[in-house]
Amino acid sequence: MGEGRASAPGYTYGTGEVARSPLSVEDLGLLERTVLFTEEDERYLRMAGDVLEGQVEQILDVWYGFVGDNPHLLYYFSSAETEEPNSEYLARVRGRFGQWILDTCRRPYDQEWLDYQHEIALRHTRAKKNETDEAYDTPDRIPLRYLVAFIYPITATIKPFLANGGHGSEEVDKMHDAWFKSVVLQVSLWSQPYVKEGDF
Amino acid sequence: MGEGRASAPGYTYGTGEVARSPLSVEDLGLLERTVLFTEEDERYLRMAGDVLEGQVEQILDVWYGFVGDNPHLLYYFSSAETEEPNSEYLARVRGRFGQWILDTCRRPYDQEWLDYQHEIALRHTRAKKNETDEAYDTPDRIPLRYLVAFIYPITATIKPFLANGGHGSEEVDKMHDAWFKSVVLQVSLWSQPYVKEGDF
Repeated sequence: MGEGRASAPGYTYGTGEVARSPLSVEDLGLLERTVLFTEEDERYLRMAGDVLEGQVEQILDVWYGFVGDNPHLLYYFSSAETEEPNSEYLARVRGRFGQWILDTCRRPYDQEWLDYQHEIALRHTRAKKNETDEAYDTPDRIPLRYLVAFIYPITATIKPFLANGGHGSEEVDKMHDAWFKSVVLQVSLWSQPYVKEGDF
Repeated sequence: MGEGRASAPGYTYGTGEVARSPLSVEDLGLLERTVLFTEEDERYLRMAGDVLEGQVEQILDVWYGFVGDNPHLLYYFSSAETEEPNSEYLARVRGRFGQWILDTCRRPYDQEWLDYQHEIALRHTRAKKNETDEAYDTPDRIPLRYLVAFIYPITATIKPFLANGGHGSEEVDKMHDAWFKSVVLQVSLWSQPYVKEGDF
């Protein structure tokens, strides 16, 4: 169940359907050190959750607008045959993407979270991309290059929304910094199933 | 030859020794669109190059200090047998890392640049990590998780240096944003040799 939102289709956080992460919380701790993620960042992410909660649909409008404006990205949500965007697939992913915003801010980064990161990772790859939404007409993977590249737009575009909560610029900067760290951390985790044995 | 710096050991930009990128400038263009990289960013990177040129050693001190403070990172520069940091290897990489700062700001992002990105990519992997510096006693790869994670420290720590050039905060922000885009773009490119066939 989401926090303050209706449960999104295919959202299985904390259930027995979720993949098991190949990483331990100790591995996660080393990654957190590498992105300088601290308890202060956790606090600022909680603050960000409160600021973003009422703006999730507007944020998704920006992100979906960006994808829609870029045929090379919309391609991954479109029928390989007709090249038409699969609107049902886009809508189902959108629900989970909104939930992901709040989970990024509010969930404790523990083994359960790590497992769900692995589930999210697999849902970008041949292993599971189209399965959850039965979107079998669309390409069967998101290339890793775009997953990494998305760190920029997903980080840059959130800032104006963080500034909408009435906090001072120092607090907005700290929320934004915590968000940036978390996005980098998560994309690092999501790269795992793409990588050759032993190279992750 | 570097721009304003002595040539670093193992720095082979633009020579026949450099690998060929599997990507075309058209592929690069799509990645640039994905990180919203524009001609304005190129101009701000040139400005950043002028600001950073005289501060390269201080920037490297920060980055090397960070690695030195984190045993799980220093590990990749240390003898697998004795666990002692390989100081010659660290010094040679440092020279190229300094050159990379200036290349990020000043080189045109063309096929030659793309080829050198591929060379840099390979030098993080089993294909070439220790070859250039004959550092065969150190681990033979940098795991991709840390390559991606480094996007955060390499981006965050550059900002105070960008602010040292006497530019106003709006220009500093724009230089920083262009740097952030470029780092994400480059790490995306560097992930290529890690990835399973067809998934990049």
